[in-house]
Amino acid sequence: MSRQGAVAAILALGLLGGAVTVGVGQPSTGQPALPSKDRLPGPAPDEVPDGPLGASIRYGERILTQTRVYAKEYTGNGLNCTSCHLDKGRKAYSSPWVGTWGVFPEYRSRNAKVNLLEDRVNDCFERSMNGRPLPRDGEEMRAILAYIWWLSRDLPVGVEPPGRGFVKLAPVGPTVKGRGEAVYVAKCAVCHGRDGQGLTSPSGDYLFPPLWGPQSFNIGAGMARRNTAAAFVKANMPYGQDGTLTDQEAYDVAAYFTEQPRPDFPRKDEDWPKGDKPPDARY
Amino acid sequence: MSRQGAVAAILALGLLGGAVTVGVGQPSTGQPALPSKDRLPGPAPDEVPDGPLGASIRYGERILTQTRVYAKEYTGNGLNCTSCHLDKGRKAYSSPWVGTWGVFPEYRSRNAKVNLLEDRVNDCFERSMNGRPLPRDGEEMRAILAYIWWLSRDLPVGVEPPGRGFVKLAPVGPTVKGRGEAVYVAKCAVCHGRDGQGLTSPSGDYLFPPLWGPQSFNIGAGMARRNTAAAFVKANMPYGQDGTLTDQEAYDVAAYFTEQPRPDFPRKDEDWPKGDKPPDARY
Repeated sequence: MSRQGAVAAILALGLLGGAVTVGVGQPSTGQPALPSKDRLPGPAPDEVPDGPLGASIRYGERILTQTRVYAKEYTGNGLNCTSCHLDKGRKAYSSPWVGTWGVFPEYRSRNAKVNLLEDRVNDCFERSMNGRPLPRDGEEMRAILAYIWWLSRDLPVGVEPPGRGFVKLAPVGPTVKGRGEAVYVAKCAVCHGRDGQGLTSPSGDYLFPPLWGPQSFNIGAGMARRNTAAAFVKANMPYGQDGTLTDQEAYDVAAYFTEQPRPDFPRKDEDWPKGDKPPDARY
Repeated sequence: MSRQGAVAAILALGLLGGAVTVGVGQPSTGQPALPSKDRLPGPAPDEVPDGPLGASIRYGERILTQTRVYAKEYTGNGLNCTSCHLDKGRKAYSSPWVGTWGVFPEYRSRNAKVNLLEDRVNDCFERSMNGRPLPRDGEEMRAILAYIWWLSRDLPVGVEPPGRGFVKLAPVGPTVKGRGEAVYVAKCAVCHGRDGQGLTSPSGDYLFPPLWGPQSFNIGAGMARRNTAAAFVKANMPYGQDGTLTDQEAYDVAAYFTEQPRPDFPRKDEDWPKGDKPPDARY
């Protein structure tokens, strides 16, 4: 089967069984949001309120799913927010947004501050999107927050929501050279490319995101850390077949792709000012 | 009984039966937060978490209760936030903060925008406090938001919390000249002064807030609107005797004190850009 044929088969599998509308840089409209075993609660799409608040929520969804279109000047690579936050922020353990409204403000060791959700959003723009921070009082930020607030509806403030962040994997030992690359070639390359540069449509839209190189997240992103990436991979990859890799395979393949060349993060020296840098940081 | 004696009696009454630690510009420490029939749920003071997040929550409480000390450069009058948000934001129908985390973002007609809680906080600083907006990413704003977030713990996002805002009063007709002043003299002047300038301790702290004049809220504040002020008065005043005025008395006295001279709000021409100004706006 050709690469294109294999990708088509994966997309079809997704359409039948999983969360397919997400993470692939496609417009978010016109495709059903299908239930998945990992789908979190959250209001149905037709429950967006009317009026200006609803308009802001819908604009937020467009920014988050088509970031390169609706927040173009703040992004610096080939990713959309939903490249990592799958199923429009509704998939468990892909750093979902359902319930996120109630868990910020939160202390984070990376900047040793109490972070508002705006801080966290801009962290993603500067690191995962290799771009620039959004103005804190601009329409884009208001819209993103409105969407996350709406997705969090009915969940209690200050209580850890289900499926938050990433799965907790048991630590493993050092990876063996070559093993991660073998997993990558067997399980990931069909969508993300043997060279890790993703897959684009003829119009240049990314159907699958680049995992390294100039169009991928920079070294300051959470996804550039082996342990974080392994947890993401374990619960979410291969796309449509999540949970099929062993923990060791997830760690191995994460070690492979996180260590590939990717953009620098200029402010990296400011991170973890209290000296509690995690062992898998890239710097 | 002298004015001082009467005030002492009111304070004693508050200590015995109501929410006394609030709204009077006094340091918030060392006085018990007493239960009241209108007290909203919310975590107990000893449930503030440890660590930097807890420190921020406690700092937020200090700013909100002793605004003239901890956010001095952003205030422009004799008020603290808790001059209106009684019982440290826990009293029903005094625009409480319990549950406020889950109800923003919210569309507001006054600026015809989807407002984040930061916008609302800064509205208060510019209007009720007759001051200047806090930097959106400064420690003061983070702390205020952290306190309001903590007070909202366990309440569901997106759901109208109990006791929100002010009571809904039935509309009444025009006030009769002199009637509001009579209520004021009989019921309010003992604490707020016949001249509306409040009551200060020998050290200059306001024990009771000024209701008009240069040390009071400006014409852009919600409390400068008759209907809003009447609803506040009805549910909260006289201090320790809330609910004892008739609706008509509340409207009459609100008409009296809202119309007294007070600072201008320079950006008033930007308010209600869609033309839906409420009938009791001061401009």
